Amino acid sequence: MSNYSLVKPYLITRSVSPENQETPISFVEADRIENRLFYRRNHFSYPNLSYTSSWLPVNGAMQRPTLFSMEDLFRFPSKTIKVLLECAGNKRSLFEPKVFGEQWEKGAVSQGYWTGVPLKSLLEYCGLSAQAKEVVIEGYDQGKRPDTDKVHPFKRSLPIDKALHPDTLVAYQYNGQPLPYKHGCPLRLIVPQWYAMASVKWIKQIRVIESEFEGPFQSIDYIYYPNKDDNEGAFPVTTLNVNSTIQKPVDHDKLDTGQHTIKGIAYTGEGKITQVEISTDGGKSWTNASLENEPSEYEWVSWSHQWPALEKGEYTIMTRAADSTGRIQPMKPFWNRKGYGYNAVDQIKVKIE
Amino acid sequence: MSNYSLVKPYLITRSVSPENQETPISFVEADRIENRLFYRRNHFSYPNLSYTSSWLPVNGAMQRPTLFSMEDLFRFPSKTIKVLLECAGNKRSLFEPKVFGEQWEKGAVSQGYWTGVPLKSLLEYCGLSAQAKEVVIEGYDQGKRPDTDKVHPFKRSLPIDKALHPDTLVAYQYNGQPLPYKHGCPLRLIVPQWYAMASVKWIKQIRVIESEFEGPFQSIDYIYYPNKDDNEGAFPVTTLNVNSTIQKPVDHDKLDTGQHTIKGIAYTGEGKITQVEISTDGGKSWTNASLENEPSEYEWVSWSHQWPALEKGEYTIMTRAADSTGRIQPMKPFWNRKGYGYNAVDQIKVKIE
Repeated sequence: MSNYSLVKPYLITRSVSPENQETPISFVEADRIENRLFYRRNHFSYPNLSYTSSWLPVNGAMQRPTLFSMEDLFRFPSKTIKVLLECAGNKRSLFEPKVFGEQWEKGAVSQGYWTGVPLKSLLEYCGLSAQAKEVVIEGYDQGKRPDTDKVHPFKRSLPIDKALHPDTLVAYQYNGQPLPYKHGCPLRLIVPQWYAMASVKWIKQIRVIESEFEGPFQSIDYIYYPNKDDNEGAFPVTTLNVNSTIQKPVDHDKLDTGQHTIKGIAYTGEGKITQVEISTDGGKSWTNASLENEPSEYEWVSWSHQWPALEKGEYTIMTRAADSTGRIQPMKPFWNRKGYGYNAVDQIKVKIE
Repeated sequence: MSNYSLVKPYLITRSVSPENQETPISFVEADRIENRLFYRRNHFSYPNLSYTSSWLPVNGAMQRPTLFSMEDLFRFPSKTIKVLLECAGNKRSLFEPKVFGEQWEKGAVSQGYWTGVPLKSLLEYCGLSAQAKEVVIEGYDQGKRPDTDKVHPFKRSLPIDKALHPDTLVAYQYNGQPLPYKHGCPLRLIVPQWYAMASVKWIKQIRVIESEFEGPFQSIDYIYYPNKDDNEGAFPVTTLNVNSTIQKPVDHDKLDTGQHTIKGIAYTGEGKITQVEISTDGGKSWTNASLENEPSEYEWVSWSHQWPALEKGEYTIMTRAADSTGRIQPMKPFWNRKGYGYNAVDQIKVKIE
């Protein structure tokens, strides 16, 4: 007797003002996340939008600064790509020593189909200056930060080569529908392979600059600070680390003796996943999990493993993904003060009884 | 600019089959929980009910075993009481060493208004035997347990004095509406002050016995086992321990310097809450939090504390409730193998920056 028709998982609330809620990653079955369960990560209250919010100014170091209407954007060839977005703080709650900030567990990650115009098309249409160095994307969301009394918009830049990557999109649809309000309607940037702070929502303006952009969401936040008390060795958060997450069983579950399916996802921001290893003896021995679909660059691969759990006892299950650039999940995470990029080997415990 | 109209918290999923979801306790404001956010705790799939499921047989050691219709029940004087229910496993995830089972955080607790007939009225109507010792309540929910291949119904007993307590109800309404299906429609037991395994849902039968009931949900589960490897010193789970929970701020939050409101709830299964102490220096000094309403026996009291957080740094906030029977939350929980009754001093950390 299945409960699935009656029982729905929901987003898991981390804060309500601003809204930060994560995907119940253990309980999602689909490989594209419906809007209802797509994690929500906000720095500020939701912006007030008006009918002019759909006009997109693209300006700065270019020959023809242009104000695009939605109709203008629709006239450019569109592209639809399945892209995973992961919050840089995903799994922050797992760091030891613990770090402050939203205590994301493993579900600040979701994926689905984004449709839009390559940013490259717009920039080329405008006649990009040869001196163009970065592209600054500003969102309509704004507010005060704890470190100043000024109102800041959420604003970040991309290096020119990433901005010109043909899969960096100015998106206007998610899963075939207009972008949901909470995910950046009417226009958001989609930057495949980078942590999702780069995928600016509610785009207000795109500006090309010939210098290096500095703003608090680029020079204070979204920086790896390896030390607790000083900023030595700091470097910016960019591409996703190679990662894997066990969806089932859940941590500290009690199971019968017998055959169990262990399943999960794995993803990376460089190349493709090539292997997911699994251990059911706390890391002493490893075997390959089965990849359920052909790994591709911008989305997770689902994996599974049939585990004959015949003896009662407590077991530590671990998974370790590797990608085609040779990166592999470390046993210990790279601790950093703001808690970004956690990607240590995933692990849970279960009891067979 | 408030986000509250746009942002809703949801139940937090622990398992979907059976459904176990907890209340997002940090984000509830009301003192009666709406059905949507009332925690759900199931041992089995939801039962299949038919129109005969609303007939209630009350039988066993009595002069007039009776089959009550809903109309019969409605003819008895009804009682409406605000009662808190807490899962015996609430806060299980906080035990160290960790224990197996649903990893409830702090939200397997909810409260609201229950309306029904005192069980005592029904038992007296039926002419209780003088030898009556326990009252066995059986639910329509059933299934296999990991420890046997037999199908067991969820079934538990109450000692006769608790069954005859005038506030032990056979309830048919929650918050003025017919009981929600997931909370035991059409009839559930409400046993104030006991952990909620006693408040059997979807009542199928009530049977009075002259002996001591034994069943797996009474003699295997819902027992405190103080030792990991043997059953020495085991004793049954009954009344709620005295407890308190910090709702706001959330754990590992970052806050500005300035005045902050710390708020939460406190409750007990014996007597009333008399005091909630709060410490913002990791337990070195304590002060009384303000109780926001008059403590009463069956529900939580809300408390708050104004905290002038003027100096940057990391702070450990603790709360400790005491009740009128002299019980007080311990610094360390009473560890037990199945992880019941966690009630150590609640604590969170925050960073003022």
